[in-house]
Amino acid sequence: MKVTVLQNIMNANDKIAAKNQDMLEQNRVLSINVMASPGAGKTSLLLETIRQLKDKFKICVIEADIASTMDADRIIREGVQAVHINTGGECHTDANMLGAALEDLPLKEIDLLFLENVGNLVCPAEFRIGTKKSIMLLSVPEGDDKPFKYPLMFSTVDAVVVSKMDYLPLSDFDLERFEKTVRGMNPKAEIFKVSVRTGEGVADWTGWLEAQLKGI
Amino acid sequence: MKVTVLQNIMNANDKIAAKNQDMLEQNRVLSINVMASPGAGKTSLLLETIRQLKDKFKICVIEADIASTMDADRIIREGVQAVHINTGGECHTDANMLGAALEDLPLKEIDLLFLENVGNLVCPAEFRIGTKKSIMLLSVPEGDDKPFKYPLMFSTVDAVVVSKMDYLPLSDFDLERFEKTVRGMNPKAEIFKVSVRTGEGVADWTGWLEAQLKGI
Repeated sequence: MKVTVLQNIMNANDKIAAKNQDMLEQNRVLSINVMASPGAGKTSLLLETIRQLKDKFKICVIEADIASTMDADRIIREGVQAVHINTGGECHTDANMLGAALEDLPLKEIDLLFLENVGNLVCPAEFRIGTKKSIMLLSVPEGDDKPFKYPLMFSTVDAVVVSKMDYLPLSDFDLERFEKTVRGMNPKAEIFKVSVRTGEGVADWTGWLEAQLKGI
Repeated sequence: MKVTVLQNIMNANDKIAAKNQDMLEQNRVLSINVMASPGAGKTSLLLETIRQLKDKFKICVIEADIASTMDADRIIREGVQAVHINTGGECHTDANMLGAALEDLPLKEIDLLFLENVGNLVCPAEFRIGTKKSIMLLSVPEGDDKPFKYPLMFSTVDAVVVSKMDYLPLSDFDLERFEKTVRGMNPKAEIFKVSVRTGEGVADWTGWLEAQLKGI
């Protein structure tokens, strides 16, 4: 009984995800689902990305949060439009929530749309929502064993951003082992090594985004 | 429809949680639900706790994981019994999963039972499972704003362990502000500041556990 109901919910979700995808593609919006644990640095990476790219592209951010509007407020202070989705306690964003947010946005004008998903390595990976690309951050202090624990997330994203690289000297994170593991699970995924604090790797990440924007 | 089904699931869950609680109390087991983000250092804290207390108390660990048995294997190497629960993709442990694990354990012999929950700050807080105490770890690199984002977790636990204190010099984590926030949401919660790597604060944490064990 429980399984059947969940199956129906997932089918309905996928239909709305396909509709979201059509709407985003028709309006030539590069849409990116950004996933990570709490505290991996999603908002910080988005803020730095906005600083680097906002003069070239029209950027917008949808912030999914369980309770607060703190992250949306930080984005707005950078002079970029941000929409807040309160997931009402849900641990992920589903296609319906994204669809409702899209209705409020001037999609024709937007080049690059980020959805900052709820901080969680499990549930967000299970829901198709209709974005063109999905990426995840893994911060160095979380440890290099995470692909084994969250294989669905690591094997389905288009890019993995290793964040907080400035913590590496204090950590036992083995970058070589990590990259080998990720490439084994997901050969097509790009891997970026970034520290927003020092600026390391930011240009590689924004360069990738610019390349994706050309293909839209 | 979805809401009704979820409500029924939660009621059924709470009944099983009450049964688990009875069973643990009758056997005078101090049971602790350990929650945190992925990579906050749950397993490392448990391993250090085992090293400090295993000569005095009979300890057992239930490891809930989505995919791997890596954490359970690490516990077993310390010479302590560990049971692995594969949550089958679920982002939390429910009362039924704990109940099934309890059936396999020699509860009469156990003094201290840890359940290491799935790495997630959302879903595990929503499920009563029947443990005596619930605690959470927040690692310094995750940032001091997390209570605002995950208020249910922070306001319901019995203790908050601030982990990875050795990262503090590289971080902008404001301990004073964090403690004030947590005390505002949850005045009764204990707050421990721990680094397993340097040993800082470990004795405070194990001292609290020993005090709880006396009350069982």
